[in-house]
Amino acid sequence: MKPIKVGLLGAGTVGAGTFNVLQRNQEDIRRRAGRGIEIAMVAARNLERARGIVGPNVEVVNDPFAVVNNPEIDIVVELIGGYELPRELVLRAIANGKHVVTANKALLAQHGNEIFAAAHEKGVMVAFEAAVAGGVPIIKALREGLTANRIESVAGIINGTTNFILSEMRDKGLDFATVLKEAQALGYAEADPTFDIEGVDAAHKLAIMSSIAFGIPVQFDKAYVEGISTLQAQDIRYAEQLGYRIKLLGITRRSVVDGVEGIELRVHPTLIPAGRLIANVEGAMNAVLVQADAVGSTLYYGKGAGSEPTASAVIADLVDVTRLATVDPYCRVPHLAFQPDEMNDVPVLPMSEIRSSYYLRVYVKDQLGVMADLTRILADAGISIDAVLQKEPGELQTRTDIIIITHQTSEKLVDAAIAKFEQMPAVEGKVVRIRLESLS
Amino acid sequence: MKPIKVGLLGAGTVGAGTFNVLQRNQEDIRRRAGRGIEIAMVAARNLERARGIVGPNVEVVNDPFAVVNNPEIDIVVELIGGYELPRELVLRAIANGKHVVTANKALLAQHGNEIFAAAHEKGVMVAFEAAVAGGVPIIKALREGLTANRIESVAGIINGTTNFILSEMRDKGLDFATVLKEAQALGYAEADPTFDIEGVDAAHKLAIMSSIAFGIPVQFDKAYVEGISTLQAQDIRYAEQLGYRIKLLGITRRSVVDGVEGIELRVHPTLIPAGRLIANVEGAMNAVLVQADAVGSTLYYGKGAGSEPTASAVIADLVDVTRLATVDPYCRVPHLAFQPDEMNDVPVLPMSEIRSSYYLRVYVKDQLGVMADLTRILADAGISIDAVLQKEPGELQTRTDIIIITHQTSEKLVDAAIAKFEQMPAVEGKVVRIRLESLS
Repeated sequence: MKPIKVGLLGAGTVGAGTFNVLQRNQEDIRRRAGRGIEIAMVAARNLERARGIVGPNVEVVNDPFAVVNNPEIDIVVELIGGYELPRELVLRAIANGKHVVTANKALLAQHGNEIFAAAHEKGVMVAFEAAVAGGVPIIKALREGLTANRIESVAGIINGTTNFILSEMRDKGLDFATVLKEAQALGYAEADPTFDIEGVDAAHKLAIMSSIAFGIPVQFDKAYVEGISTLQAQDIRYAEQLGYRIKLLGITRRSVVDGVEGIELRVHPTLIPAGRLIANVEGAMNAVLVQADAVGSTLYYGKGAGSEPTASAVIADLVDVTRLATVDPYCRVPHLAFQPDEMNDVPVLPMSEIRSSYYLRVYVKDQLGVMADLTRILADAGISIDAVLQKEPGELQTRTDIIIITHQTSEKLVDAAIAKFEQMPAVEGKVVRIRLESLS
Repeated sequence: MKPIKVGLLGAGTVGAGTFNVLQRNQEDIRRRAGRGIEIAMVAARNLERARGIVGPNVEVVNDPFAVVNNPEIDIVVELIGGYELPRELVLRAIANGKHVVTANKALLAQHGNEIFAAAHEKGVMVAFEAAVAGGVPIIKALREGLTANRIESVAGIINGTTNFILSEMRDKGLDFATVLKEAQALGYAEADPTFDIEGVDAAHKLAIMSSIAFGIPVQFDKAYVEGISTLQAQDIRYAEQLGYRIKLLGITRRSVVDGVEGIELRVHPTLIPAGRLIANVEGAMNAVLVQADAVGSTLYYGKGAGSEPTASAVIADLVDVTRLATVDPYCRVPHLAFQPDEMNDVPVLPMSEIRSSYYLRVYVKDQLGVMADLTRILADAGISIDAVLQKEPGELQTRTDIIIITHQTSEKLVDAAIAKFEQMPAVEGKVVRIRLESLS
């Protein structure tokens, strides 16, 4: 059988990795796929650079539309990044009857529903294993490996930059700004790190996983997103003393509030018991923990970014698409795990409705009755306490930190209690509130 | 579309789990698969018990051949266990043009090559996700998720019974026999635990993964198998002091000896650095660590046994088979990851040819020059030392343990050195030798 022809949009880090891995392992890949996979055309801004990667035998062009409109191309691999141009290119490729592989989580988080609908209508595949957790086959696991299950929750460390920063803050006791500079110097954080450190990248990935797990549309716009840029070193230390690690988690979970089902969809710093496997995922690594009714907990771990780990996922998709390119679309795995006419409309819950445990740090004047007042406010709100840590004031100091860990409760109750804390004369400044998940 | 009809062979723990999960989640499963999956017939030894599980609407029979010969049945699920009867049933089902799903690792380890050849010839699928690591989709990850990669090694905790025993021995400082009794009382070990504790079950699973990882036939008969029944509590303690945990690992790895490629295939107790994620997999849990050239290290973790975790994998296979039941066989994933005419014949290496690091415990008379003699023997053999731990003799004692950890070397060199150790007048009894893998 003739090799399947692939057109590459973008010859950056992942594009180069995809070309190199396809070249290096072409024999093993052909022996698996039963058919060669050949990059036949590349669109790149920098032609010289692209030619340096793919050599003289692959056509290199500036215009990405020349690739998606080329009738010789069977599969388009979109590795440009961003939203609007990729959207236009992917929709054009689909309209031209081509299959698409993309690593672009931002694109799918924003325009996934439109793109999957177009692909379904045209009978082509849009594959996106590389969009979440790099080379870890988590999309395949959720979408095909766990089809027996009612999935209850997905919780993931799905941004390597922030996990590297948090690991370094904990290891070295440094503050956020210092570690961010180090991460930028080492190439673990970008010059403009906003998308990573503010949790947006993680929320893109989480919105995709949530859709696959629960059979709902991709709803990035409904996600709650809180990053790590305001996290303080002392809270990492206190958490450690209480037996927890702080990770930036993306969490999506079924929840029933007053008998009504909803979906939690949230990214924020989270305390996790230090003994959990996922709490021990360090540096730039990714891990996703899935809880489901039949299988229980499963965890998937590996490199979430980088040239060849991401290329690994892109090529796995190319092999899948190559195998299924010509079969009846009904025989393929649905893009979002559930058949398109079988999706759910369970709503995403507002944050006031979610349930969690909480770490609260209150900076107080060291005077009689403060603890009694704080715990009375919690008791009156029906919030029960799991642990308390009161630091002795330093020498010559008259203020100190009180840390309270609550049992599971609702976010709106905690926010109301915090508002009362902050009205107490003995309480100084804002209360620090970090969510806590036992993940048991 | 009408539901696909499934015939169940065996209504034990996994059979009941499969029926129950299919019932409970039938709507979610149908919404994913695009077609209902219906258990239409069950063969079981105990008809009463089987009827108690599946109710009055499913035909229950004693004769499993009545299921595999029933023209109404599309997919046969083999959950009987053992070798010969399942082999006959599976081959008959294939000959009758039925797809097969099995959780039977012993069957595939012994007769897999014959079964897959027959299935290929007939154009039907034999799916076996449940045969390795229970509900963890490791077969799918290796076979489909990592197709871009040259896989370098697979190392797994793939037997929950032994991992439970080792976790308890370490936690409580108890000896093997005591913990085995506890495990039997708790249902974590069978009345005849031989297959588990002697590593045979792990070797079955490892032989299957090795085949998929490297594109070689299933070669359980070439596996080296060493269990945990002779492991002593003191070696677990010493390992801990040196920063290691002892796990029963199944390891399969590409290796080049004198320029010739071979495959290591071995199950044995193994020291692992305590900081590694896989070293922290405790109790009856399973985990598989895969090293591959593009993606690097990935790890897959979850419950490796039990009714519903195993059913989760059986049903995931049923969904896959349901989707692909009618497509051209060439469009399906090959049984052993590589196309049948593209398999390798890289040989499995004898143990003398493998490379590993080693933990050696030597029981010696506490006299001058013993350490010098031991280390001289290693130096002469070209074996370099990574760490040494010499315990002071207890009060009134004249003998003590010396523990030596070597760098990576070849097994035959270590065995020769051990033979020399045991000829030394100061050395008493046999030297304890446990392999050590850094898994970096």
